[in-house]
Amino acid sequence: MNEHTVKSYEEELKLLDRRIAQMGGYAEKLLVQAMDALERRDPKLAETAVSSDAMLDQLEREVQEQVILMIARRQPLANDLRHIMTVLKIAGDLERIGDLAKNIAKRALAVATESYPKPLMTGMRHMTEMVQAQLKDVLDALTTLDADKAMKVWLSDEQVDAMYNSLFRELLTYMMEDPRNIGLCTHFLFGAKNIERIGDHTTNIAENIHYLVHGVPIADDRPKGDRTSSTLITPRQ
Amino acid sequence: MNEHTVKSYEEELKLLDRRIAQMGGYAEKLLVQAMDALERRDPKLAETAVSSDAMLDQLEREVQEQVILMIARRQPLANDLRHIMTVLKIAGDLERIGDLAKNIAKRALAVATESYPKPLMTGMRHMTEMVQAQLKDVLDALTTLDADKAMKVWLSDEQVDAMYNSLFRELLTYMMEDPRNIGLCTHFLFGAKNIERIGDHTTNIAENIHYLVHGVPIADDRPKGDRTSSTLITPRQ
Repeated sequence: MNEHTVKSYEEELKLLDRRIAQMGGYAEKLLVQAMDALERRDPKLAETAVSSDAMLDQLEREVQEQVILMIARRQPLANDLRHIMTVLKIAGDLERIGDLAKNIAKRALAVATESYPKPLMTGMRHMTEMVQAQLKDVLDALTTLDADKAMKVWLSDEQVDAMYNSLFRELLTYMMEDPRNIGLCTHFLFGAKNIERIGDHTTNIAENIHYLVHGVPIADDRPKGDRTSSTLITPRQ
Repeated sequence: MNEHTVKSYEEELKLLDRRIAQMGGYAEKLLVQAMDALERRDPKLAETAVSSDAMLDQLEREVQEQVILMIARRQPLANDLRHIMTVLKIAGDLERIGDLAKNIAKRALAVATESYPKPLMTGMRHMTEMVQAQLKDVLDALTTLDADKAMKVWLSDEQVDAMYNSLFRELLTYMMEDPRNIGLCTHFLFGAKNIERIGDHTTNIAENIHYLVHGVPIADDRPKGDRTSSTLITPRQ
């Protein structure tokens, strides 16, 4: 392989990184917009978020196509292939984060004319800020290939799960107290679940960064904290 | 490329197909087990379903590794690459179907000692049977590369969404009628959403079969029928 080919391959890798960074930026922005729309009951902002998810889908398709052309042209060896396929997985997680944020924006539209209990929104806001910070950190870790930073994100997902558990219980309590809260709280239930899933995708990205840097997967199973699937909550006696 | 290489490549493709077919079989079985466990309140069956999801994860990892080695060894051209990458995507959808079914099994464990209103289970059963039939059809279409059959699955997802909408409303009505139903119905809400998402992954597989056969994506956007994110349901006046 001559120097020119090597350089071009690296340039292609850089273009791939730029596209992933761009996807990360869009995913972050979409999440902020969706939650702001929910908090401020701003249907216009919600609509902006819903429609801008298409950009992420488009970028993911571009990444997929670039990866196929890179592989076909460069015929990389197994290790380089693993690297490229890992980047492709990261693109997939970012696209899913966009989908989940878009779904929150749709819910923001559905409840835009409602007034809702302040503590509920505080819980949602708190959880979202934590996931936003993790998404920011994981995107920084991706740019700088900082496996330690990625590992911190990976470990902190348990806190998001804990927050989700407590918000889940709070939401069910509201529903049990007054049936008029049920329609609204169901949107918050699914919205909170979406945030928790965005946290999971952020954790996937952290795992993939670890793999990119060290060439091996994270050995331990991630500590999982979402207990809402395995618990039955009953009204207070 | 000599005849021997061509033959080996085709053998590798066949092995890949076999692994995908095996994943499909596991995914189907897991969904049946999870729903049976929920319906019969059978914690043992639920535990079987929860633990057998690991097989699907393992198979997906094997598929990923095989794909990387195939590409590295065979250096396929762009069209063959697109084929292999599409098969990889199908493996990803099957793995997600397994995850979603496993989550239903966890919920079956959580509510195993509850008695639940019969119409609720009828609605869940009805919706699941439809998704099971679609999953079966899409796996058949994959084995025989039958794009028309895949297209039928793709078009029928709208009916699953319609069923989900009506089950969703029914569940909220139960919750509004008696707060003691809320804990149980929340599990059913998320369970029904999981079935609806399994339907979406089945549809993704159908799209990928279309691509495998015709080499182009399905032109139209799929008709989407899940309106629960954009509707607010209030108690009956």
